[in-house]
Amino acid sequence: MPLTGAEASKTSDASVENAQEIIKAKYVLGCDGAHSWVRKQLGLKLEGASRDVSWGVLDAFPVTDFPDIRRRSIIKSEFGNLMIIPRERKLVRTYVQVSSGLAEIYRASDGDPEVIMQAVRRVMQPYRFDASRLEWSTIYSVGHRYCRELSRYDRIFLAGDAVHTHSPKAGQGMNVSMQDSYNLGWKLASVIHGVAPPSLLRTYHEERLPVAKRLIDFDKRICRGMLEAENTFDEDHRRALVEENTSMSGLAVTYEPNLVIAKPIVRQTNGGEKLNPRVNGHSPLPMQPDRLKAIRLGARMPSALVLSHADSQPHELQRIFQSTGEWNLVIFGGNILEEEQRQRVESVAASLSSPESVVQRMRSRGNLSHHSTIGSLSIYLVHSALHTEVDIGDLPEIFRLPDDDTGFDYGKVFVDNESYHVGGGNAYDEYGISPHGCLVLLRPDQHVAFKGDLEDIGFFEHLLDSIQPEVII
Amino acid sequence: MPLTGAEASKTSDASVENAQEIIKAKYVLGCDGAHSWVRKQLGLKLEGASRDVSWGVLDAFPVTDFPDIRRRSIIKSEFGNLMIIPRERKLVRTYVQVSSGLAEIYRASDGDPEVIMQAVRRVMQPYRFDASRLEWSTIYSVGHRYCRELSRYDRIFLAGDAVHTHSPKAGQGMNVSMQDSYNLGWKLASVIHGVAPPSLLRTYHEERLPVAKRLIDFDKRICRGMLEAENTFDEDHRRALVEENTSMSGLAVTYEPNLVIAKPIVRQTNGGEKLNPRVNGHSPLPMQPDRLKAIRLGARMPSALVLSHADSQPHELQRIFQSTGEWNLVIFGGNILEEEQRQRVESVAASLSSPESVVQRMRSRGNLSHHSTIGSLSIYLVHSALHTEVDIGDLPEIFRLPDDDTGFDYGKVFVDNESYHVGGGNAYDEYGISPHGCLVLLRPDQHVAFKGDLEDIGFFEHLLDSIQPEVII
Repeated sequence: MPLTGAEASKTSDASVENAQEIIKAKYVLGCDGAHSWVRKQLGLKLEGASRDVSWGVLDAFPVTDFPDIRRRSIIKSEFGNLMIIPRERKLVRTYVQVSSGLAEIYRASDGDPEVIMQAVRRVMQPYRFDASRLEWSTIYSVGHRYCRELSRYDRIFLAGDAVHTHSPKAGQGMNVSMQDSYNLGWKLASVIHGVAPPSLLRTYHEERLPVAKRLIDFDKRICRGMLEAENTFDEDHRRALVEENTSMSGLAVTYEPNLVIAKPIVRQTNGGEKLNPRVNGHSPLPMQPDRLKAIRLGARMPSALVLSHADSQPHELQRIFQSTGEWNLVIFGGNILEEEQRQRVESVAASLSSPESVVQRMRSRGNLSHHSTIGSLSIYLVHSALHTEVDIGDLPEIFRLPDDDTGFDYGKVFVDNESYHVGGGNAYDEYGISPHGCLVLLRPDQHVAFKGDLEDIGFFEHLLDSIQPEVII
Repeated sequence: MPLTGAEASKTSDASVENAQEIIKAKYVLGCDGAHSWVRKQLGLKLEGASRDVSWGVLDAFPVTDFPDIRRRSIIKSEFGNLMIIPRERKLVRTYVQVSSGLAEIYRASDGDPEVIMQAVRRVMQPYRFDASRLEWSTIYSVGHRYCRELSRYDRIFLAGDAVHTHSPKAGQGMNVSMQDSYNLGWKLASVIHGVAPPSLLRTYHEERLPVAKRLIDFDKRICRGMLEAENTFDEDHRRALVEENTSMSGLAVTYEPNLVIAKPIVRQTNGGEKLNPRVNGHSPLPMQPDRLKAIRLGARMPSALVLSHADSQPHELQRIFQSTGEWNLVIFGGNILEEEQRQRVESVAASLSSPESVVQRMRSRGNLSHHSTIGSLSIYLVHSALHTEVDIGDLPEIFRLPDDDTGFDYGKVFVDNESYHVGGGNAYDEYGISPHGCLVLLRPDQHVAFKGDLEDIGFFEHLLDSIQPEVII
């Protein structure tokens, strides 16, 4: 049966016992947990060792004289190890190592939380540990496993626990799983809407498999640290805990160069000093090694406070970009009151406005497809001139497109100036942007696809061109 | 008919044309606008001059080359004056002075907004001013009037436009009106619940009449500034605009001493140096003239970032205090790791825990009345010792009352320490609190009822005692 778009058809007869249901679909997403049926149909397995260690989990309202009960704490005593995680509504979660004997007793008792309470009390001594209420308990064994294939045929995809299972101790399970789906979402939407080639879907596996591996490695370290070294914290456990507080956040995930992450630009060298390519008749600029240190290819761009040029209202840059499937080109234009810098920005604007630019071809396509934002491109100017000295109406039209309500769009120009009340004026410094400015292309998931100087606009065009579908729908 | 509590009874027969409805109530609140029926029944009038000047108001989506259209702007040109106020959804409100002739034309045209557009265009020239859509328009005359009585018999109260009418230009109408009601709300609830004497209600008029007067005076200045001085801003207009941005916020309202605002403590002088009274056997401390400069009697206490002692989470102090009709005593205890300071705090705690303390009598009453928060008192300790060095379980019990879930309440002790991520550790400095600490009593509306040294606990007791109802219900 020929299928169009993302449509699926199904044949079923619910009135018959043991009825068979046949669903025909272009894509299958297996977000069906650790025992994933989809994964099993593909003949794929979760690989890795399962350690024969059981942990008890208890959600309780504790009554205790332990002074840090409302802080996340790890206790390693001669009687065993446990972890305390304060929760909402005065609840406290406790993870405690339990012997296989105690696990047996717990199961035999039909899950009596008092069994786990006793294990907790043993470790907590000499502190008193009672509970006014026990809300929930369980015992689980740790399995650190992941699947080596996250997709097949660019048609079938696996996400979340279906491809990585681990202990809950690092609090990463839900986060990484949602990030899996977030990575896949815009790619699938783009391909289905015909605004990106099917090969884009291959990057899902390429980008998320290393994340799954790192997650499992990290969880192993956290668990090993919790198990071993009674009464002491070894160096790797300490390091893992520090990483958990810093680099494990979704902002730290960095994807390697691929179809939608550019390689770093290699500059021609001139007597040892790296120079920018000569573009548009402008002089090449010497490269600074620490330039754009905070904007890393493949990682999400950190946020910074900027002001809307038109009304001076402060905005976190990261919140300006919506998760609607559109790409964002951010032109950090520098101080456009300086003649040379103004010309460089106007040159970029002219280039983007040319009918040959991929931007204009994407716009034409958008006009045909009822202005869907999926696969479209928004262009922002973030300059550093004093906003009171620049009239927004004098800026190139590519930064202020026509708007039915107000003549032109006032919402795409921002300025790195200090706000009246809440700081600001440090965005260029925080990002490490030179006075010459730069270009940053953000994917729909806000990972940096490309960064370069204003004269590198050709690289930007090339990257975006390479993922346009062959046939414009 | 005898009525209990706030109950009201009414007699009506809706089935009869021109039916009369009789409502019997203990209290009447007239929040019925500039033409208040309640006010008229009392024979009260709004007093003050009505200037014979008309203003046009226009809500539009402007299409213009005026560069500051998205900023609040006042334009004074040889063709007249206007004010621009950017609104939501790209809307812009414009106030423009119109001649009596133009006002006539507007009325004759049945409110054609194009008439006001023309007045706006005239002032805006040489800038172009069109609109893609006109959403609303009106013409009004300014009346700066207020009523000299805000309540009568402590039974009938007037609030909002019923007691002060003015131009909308300062954007204060809704704010001041809500603050009227907020001032009355907790007082009325306290009297109805029998936890405060009816005389408390007199303070509504005492506190809000000066606010109404100031509002009208301020509005006159803003309007006069807008009317006069074509092409220029006179000094008073500039000053009024600055005040609007700063002191007109609700936080700047300061009530004079009355039943529920203490007079400043007068110290015995000793050879020219002011000393604290000798209380509880402690040495008198020299008074610093700039002490507690940010905590002003009768004004709201500004906020500061503090950490919860138990879990180190940061909190804005102002958000800790709920608007539930309860009073809050904040004990800034200083560095309680120092022996002398610890003893001073324990002395305050002992005093508050004594059966003779008004606190204990209020608690007994609360226990009888099903723990209603109205008219109750919460006690907070904000100390400045390093939180890791103080065990919350060692603090006096008055700061950690029994809690069914967790043994004792972890939520009443805070610390002026730096947080992990978001600053903090400057609360004492910001408030101007000395290392000896201080007491601050906040009314249910968070205005400062009393402030003093830790040894001034007797003054606190006296104030709170004076507003306890004679018969404990």
